Amino acid sequence: MILNKQTMTDRFIGCDSDYNSADIVLLGAGFDGTTSYRPGARFGGKMIRAESYGLETYSPYLDRDLTDIKVFDSGELELPFGNTQGVLGLIRSAIKQILGDDKIPVMLGGEHLVTLSAVEACFAKYPDLRIIHFDAHTDLREEYLGEKLSHACVMRRCRELLGDNRIYSFGIRSGTREEFKWAEGKVSINKDLDDLGNFPVYMTVDTDVLDPSEFPATGTPEAGGWRFNYLRGMIKEFGESLNIVGADLVEYSPPYDTNGVCAATAGKVLRELLLSIRIGENK
Amino acid sequence: MILNKQTMTDRFIGCDSDYNSADIVLLGAGFDGTTSYRPGARFGGKMIRAESYGLETYSPYLDRDLTDIKVFDSGELELPFGNTQGVLGLIRSAIKQILGDDKIPVMLGGEHLVTLSAVEACFAKYPDLRIIHFDAHTDLREEYLGEKLSHACVMRRCRELLGDNRIYSFGIRSGTREEFKWAEGKVSINKDLDDLGNFPVYMTVDTDVLDPSEFPATGTPEAGGWRFNYLRGMIKEFGESLNIVGADLVEYSPPYDTNGVCAATAGKVLRELLLSIRIGENK
Amino acid sequence: MILNKQTMTDRFIGCDSDYNSADIVLLGAGFDGTTSYRPGARFGGKMIRAESYGLETYSPYLDRDLTDIKVFDSGELELPFGNTQGVLGLIRSAIKQILGDDKIPVMLGGEHLVTLSAVEACFAKYPDLRIIHFDAHTDLREEYLGEKLSHACVMRRCRELLGDNRIYSFGIRSGTREEFKWAEGKVSINKDLDDLGNFPVYMTVDTDVLDPSEFPATGTPEAGGWRFNYLRGMIKEFGESLNIVGADLVEYSPPYDTNGVCAATAGKVLRELLLSIRIGENK
Amino acid sequence: MILNKQTMTDRFIGCDSDYNSADIVLLGAGFDGTTSYRPGARFGGKMIRAESYGLETYSPYLDRDLTDIKVFDSGELELPFGNTQGVLGLIRSAIKQILGDDKIPVMLGGEHLVTLSAVEACFAKYPDLRIIHFDAHTDLREEYLGEKLSHACVMRRCRELLGDNRIYSFGIRSGTREEFKWAEGKVSINKDLDDLGNFPVYMTVDTDVLDPSEFPATGTPEAGGWRFNYLRGMIKEFGESLNIVGADLVEYSPPYDTNGVCAATAGKVLRELLLSIRIGENK
Amino acid sequence: MILNKQTMTDRFIGCDSDYNSADIVLLGAGFDGTTSYRPGARFGGKMIRAESYGLETYSPYLDRDLTDIKVFDSGELELPFGNTQGVLGLIRSAIKQILGDDKIPVMLGGEHLVTLSAVEACFAKYPDLRIIHFDAHTDLREEYLGEKLSHACVMRRCRELLGDNRIYSFGIRSGTREEFKWAEGKVSINKDLDDLGNFPVYMTVDTDVLDPSEFPATGTPEAGGWRFNYLRGMIKEFGESLNIVGADLVEYSPPYDTNGVCAATAGKVLRELLLSIRIGENK
Amino acid sequence: MILNKQTMTDRFIGCDSDYNSADIVLLGAGFDGTTSYRPGARFGGKMIRAESYGLETYSPYLDRDLTDIKVFDSGELELPFGNTQGVLGLIRSAIKQILGDDKIPVMLGGEHLVTLSAVEACFAKYPDLRIIHFDAHTDLREEYLGEKLSHACVMRRCRELLGDNRIYSFGIRSGTREEFKWAEGKVSINKDLDDLGNFPVYMTVDTDVLDPSEFPATGTPEAGGWRFNYLRGMIKEFGESLNIVGADLVEYSPPYDTNGVCAATAGKVLRELLLSIRIGENK
Repeated sequence: MILNKQTMTDRFIGCDSDYNSADIVLLGAGFDGTTSYRPGARFGGKMIRAESYGLETYSPYLDRDLTDIKVFDSGELELPFGNTQGVLGLIRSAIKQILGDDKIPVMLGGEHLVTLSAVEACFAKYPDLRIIHFDAHTDLREEYLGEKLSHACVMRRCRELLGDNRIYSFGIRSGTREEFKWAEGKVSINKDLDDLGNFPVYMTVDTDVLDPSEFPATGTPEAGGWRFNYLRGMIKEFGESLNIVGADLVEYSPPYDTNGVCAATAGKVLRELLLSIRIGENK
Repeated sequence: MILNKQTMTDRFIGCDSDYNSADIVLLGAGFDGTTSYRPGARFGGKMIRAESYGLETYSPYLDRDLTDIKVFDSGELELPFGNTQGVLGLIRSAIKQILGDDKIPVMLGGEHLVTLSAVEACFAKYPDLRIIHFDAHTDLREEYLGEKLSHACVMRRCRELLGDNRIYSFGIRSGTREEFKWAEGKVSINKDLDDLGNFPVYMTVDTDVLDPSEFPATGTPEAGGWRFNYLRGMIKEFGESLNIVGADLVEYSPPYDTNGVCAATAGKVLRELLLSIRIGENK
Repeated sequence: MILNKQTMTDRFIGCDSDYNSADIVLLGAGFDGTTSYRPGARFGGKMIRAESYGLETYSPYLDRDLTDIKVFDSGELELPFGNTQGVLGLIRSAIKQILGDDKIPVMLGGEHLVTLSAVEACFAKYPDLRIIHFDAHTDLREEYLGEKLSHACVMRRCRELLGDNRIYSFGIRSGTREEFKWAEGKVSINKDLDDLGNFPVYMTVDTDVLDPSEFPATGTPEAGGWRFNYLRGMIKEFGESLNIVGADLVEYSPPYDTNGVCAATAGKVLRELLLSIRIGENK
Repeated sequence: MILNKQTMTDRFIGCDSDYNSADIVLLGAGFDGTTSYRPGARFGGKMIRAESYGLETYSPYLDRDLTDIKVFDSGELELPFGNTQGVLGLIRSAIKQILGDDKIPVMLGGEHLVTLSAVEACFAKYPDLRIIHFDAHTDLREEYLGEKLSHACVMRRCRELLGDNRIYSFGIRSGTREEFKWAEGKVSINKDLDDLGNFPVYMTVDTDVLDPSEFPATGTPEAGGWRFNYLRGMIKEFGESLNIVGADLVEYSPPYDTNGVCAATAGKVLRELLLSIRIGENK
Repeated sequence: MILNKQTMTDRFIGCDSDYNSADIVLLGAGFDGTTSYRPGARFGGKMIRAESYGLETYSPYLDRDLTDIKVFDSGELELPFGNTQGVLGLIRSAIKQILGDDKIPVMLGGEHLVTLSAVEACFAKYPDLRIIHFDAHTDLREEYLGEKLSHACVMRRCRELLGDNRIYSFGIRSGTREEFKWAEGKVSINKDLDDLGNFPVYMTVDTDVLDPSEFPATGTPEAGGWRFNYLRGMIKEFGESLNIVGADLVEYSPPYDTNGVCAATAGKVLRELLLSIRIGENK
Repeated sequence: MILNKQTMTDRFIGCDSDYNSADIVLLGAGFDGTTSYRPGARFGGKMIRAESYGLETYSPYLDRDLTDIKVFDSGELELPFGNTQGVLGLIRSAIKQILGDDKIPVMLGGEHLVTLSAVEACFAKYPDLRIIHFDAHTDLREEYLGEKLSHACVMRRCRELLGDNRIYSFGIRSGTREEFKWAEGKVSINKDLDDLGNFPVYMTVDTDVLDPSEFPATGTPEAGGWRFNYLRGMIKEFGESLNIVGADLVEYSPPYDTNGVCAATAGKVLRELLLSIRIGENK
């Protein structure tokens, strides 16, 4: 049959499982309402999917293939504009549904504030939750221009929820003096990881942890970042050794992706992330 | 003296009056939190000012010069991100302050929802207020994805405030069937203007009323629009004949201004708008 | 239910019919292998769909709505690269299948050569076929760099098939002196349309018939073209008065759509085209 | 022979005459040293040539073909950077050489100041010289930031040379109030052309006379300009009826030609200009 | 003499030899007909030449200068569009001609499939031919969407021709699991180079071997690649130690070179490649 | 107070001191008149300021904050176009004024030639002056296209002024063979720094010393450059250990900053530079 008579789909490459049999559920949370500098992360998930056909499903780094695992791509959540609280509630509900069905949510932002909803949902199921946080920025402000629900405050909010010494940040190279000082004894910044044994872990990847030369299309580019291969290695190491119960990839802003390279790079990060998660072992 | 020892300024060209002696106050409301399609209008006012030095202060169309009138450029309001209600309140207060000092506010968006705050402030002072509305879109939805405070609903909200037959829309070429039907008897769409005598008028210019060939850098480009010279003529005609008590220019989104032409065009529209307003006659 | 558990789709807005009940079938033929100047039309159909959510389904020009008619969006044909003959065969087969099911094919290019396959399929069913051709270029070369199967030759090939006085070209403003001379008595160029009564008509819209200011993202931009409103009027007039049995929209090249306006404009042309076709009357 | 063993050339399409037999000599003057707003016109001539292969040599508007006339394309002059006086001298010498060989120079800018050198050379040969000037701007300042040799002063300098009532400007829509006032009785602005009989005429086309929607890639875009077809008609009318002894096309700035359309449009203007010049009749 | 009365040339900087005295012949093969993702490599050679004047002819890395060696730049082959077989034949003939005159061909792509023609021509002259292959992708598919002549299959086709253990690939970081498996014992991937003594070697450089941060303008960008200095070192090492009888630089796609850096980088790679080749020693 | 009634300012972030109390004076010299390749550096300083609000004032690398030091931002000098000598004189006067008030000038280019004026002014006050020079290019030509005042000659001119062994260049990877040869014994290229004790030092940072992947927006991009972190380390080391009496950051050209990353990176370099200067110790 030459002509496609079915409805089309625009899923992330190799994520062709149905919901019920899936171990991992990919979902998009295209919210960028608190972005303070350059907006556009709302289009991130959609663009990563659309451009994913330029990738292979096979990772020579891991010698694993997306066709070996079961991922359902749920597409983008339909979110209102201009209502931060409402959006966060919708995302939290969606993640809870996935967790309730004993699947692992992997979320595509959107800006970094969406992580708060996912962490809340994971924390409700896993009170021992730890966070692995890859980012250029501390995101530890108490408030930003008077707002507590801001991408610049997301890790501060997470720490309110989880308590001290639960968040491990890597790649940080920007913040106010106050944020760095405040973090001492509360949030680990650019230090060795403690032994997390089998604690449940949420891994959040802000794409601006990469150097802007490799990943310019973010809200707040910050020179001096990681190379892709370093991030890939970190994801592999943590993904394979820890008990990942949820994850996200945020802050990719397509309007600033002038040559389209970031779509390809973000997709490759996502592939490595999906293939690094240990499934069905010990959660 | 060669070296500038004063603080620098980045005002719109020719708007060098101080606040107290000004007849018109220019202010920026860089909010784009409810933009549903392509964000970036938050940068509109800032970019219009920065690029205004490529313009002349003199209009050969009107044979008037910005140096002939008194405009204070107040710069951009500092607005939080992610809090629509809070932002609208701040804008409303700023406009009220200007009106309270018997000056005419001219606001640079930002998205179209900011017009609501300005209209509220004007309506509080002028209960007979009429609105002249240049736009490609009806903006008459009751709600958008569940939200009543959305750029897609701004004229619906204005009509709730002012009542029937107070809004005159021009240039409309997009909307749902329901919006067009609902408007009958409530909002005038693409019809002749009634005789507005000396009624106070708020003029809102959504830049997408222009054809996307002349003005691509908007949130929702819509083919089949006006030429610059037509919009210029409309502003001149209405500005010179009506009692304008407030005005705005909204929805210019610099991230989509790939060759910088829209910054120049928006600045020229603003110059013509400022020079068309009758000052100190009969308000 | 918050989370979407079904597969996603990326159809053109309002084209939600299933195949069997559809009157019109939309399909993408993303081939640009003979493009001589600026490639990229391969991405045309995909981008038009992806950006269509910025449009309304309702046309105020026609007072008709896509939800009133039945269109199935078949997505993009999967076509090999580097094999012109093979690609043309696949397209022809797909169109034949649609025609065989008594539906009207509307094809999204791709470059203009894909029209040849559609015309062949239509001609096989309708030996009386006429062609309405909107274009900046004559496309009447006997060959181009030795190749007879080229976008620069597509109307020459169509005339070989259909014979003299079956093709009506409009908007032409570029060609060699030889092409213009050759056309006399064979192909109508920029002249009034004959009375076509109920003859079956294939309508092909090369987006470069529009002025490059309104539609820069084409393979071969040519100054001095039509405005959108003029093209829209022509489509309405011919669509409503003629017996359209097939149609296409070709030569939109997204890599040159630097501000994204052409995606919106092409989608609006497509909406007007779909809504202008008379269905089920007298074919 | 498959392999080209000769040196390559990158001439403007259809300009393949050798110098001695040519009637018209095309030359590039890629200087943009006094550009006050957006530089880049230095690359104008080079880009027009490089992209000219997307054009036809035949004009259906004029029913003439570049292969019918004899044009030598001399390429770009090698000009130093940062030395305005030196550059102007080199251009003047080159134009004098062409005029001395009884050929018609057609110059590709560069910025508008290069016109001064060409006018000086033509005036030396033709003391009765008139200027036809297509432009958005008056270019009549006495000085700009203290400099008399500036693109913003070029017509003022030309008037010093030629005297009153020798310059006819068309398309003007920007300038200071002082420039417009000063021009009265000295330079004709947007008025009917006097009967120029067989007076020698220099025609200078600043591409910003076109509307920025059609031609964004200029140093100082100014909304409200001409359509291509209008400029084309003006060139045809004046070219065919007047005694053109020299001409230029200036202010195309490729770095702002984000989608490449201006290269094609400028090339088409140049083709029409070359084909409109009356050759060997009565100079 | 100020004015250039000769025809212009647009050669690669420092490649000013005539054909007969040249040791190396540079030629462009601007074909991109099988590119599966992002087209535009057709413009690669032309752009590298046009931008080469921003480079120096001297390499401080090698302490050699292009003016020390004899390179003829033959420009671009004229190739038809849409006929893969025909194009490959024309390229093969041109390379054969160069080899027949005992010169070394250095080819500028175009897409990677053009390498097949060059390898065929070299293999006909040098049955002992080896290939050094720098690339991000294996290019070892048996077919791609049914086509055996595809850029994704080019090394598979080369291996059919040359046999096992003749191809040495470096920089590979993408491919299907099947390709990697198939390669074992047939094609060397990312391993040490065997001692190639004086065997004739063809060196093919796919620009996507570089990291997309350094070279975004390729058909299929793939994160995690080489730095320029690493590639430069490899070219120097292999060029100086091996018997290079032909080489190419492919897959540079100018439409995705948004800031023009890739043109400069590709030109610099080419300079280093030309200066690294041992000439006239022992072929 | 909601509405800002003061004039706006667009200073570099954290540079809020008044002139009299300032230790460092930032000033812009937006001249690019001798740029030979890609112009636009004229906009460099303005853009760095405008985008600086995306940065923090705190440097975690140095544990210092811009609010700890006293910097006055003088904005951009008003410079004429097309008059190299005049511009250089104005810059020299401004720097002299700053030095005369015992403050440290930090200049934002503009192209590299502006450094000459600053060096002249510093040399007049400090006859023992040394230069630290970060750059991809030697800039040691005697002249360029006949001009001695060119960005390609700036270090040659500085050496004429200061004499031998006063200039230390780092990061150099491009130049003619003659330049490298000439430099021996006169200018130090890519060698260890001598012990400069407390000699007064002028530090000039040409942004093209960075790799084009990290900093594409320069006049002459040159592959194989430094990473940001390396440049940052060099600035820290030299800034903290040497007696810096003046500095600049030049050759950032915003028109080629397609994704805006260079504005952020240049601002970060400037922050690190300002924070590295030892103040009030031993000048």
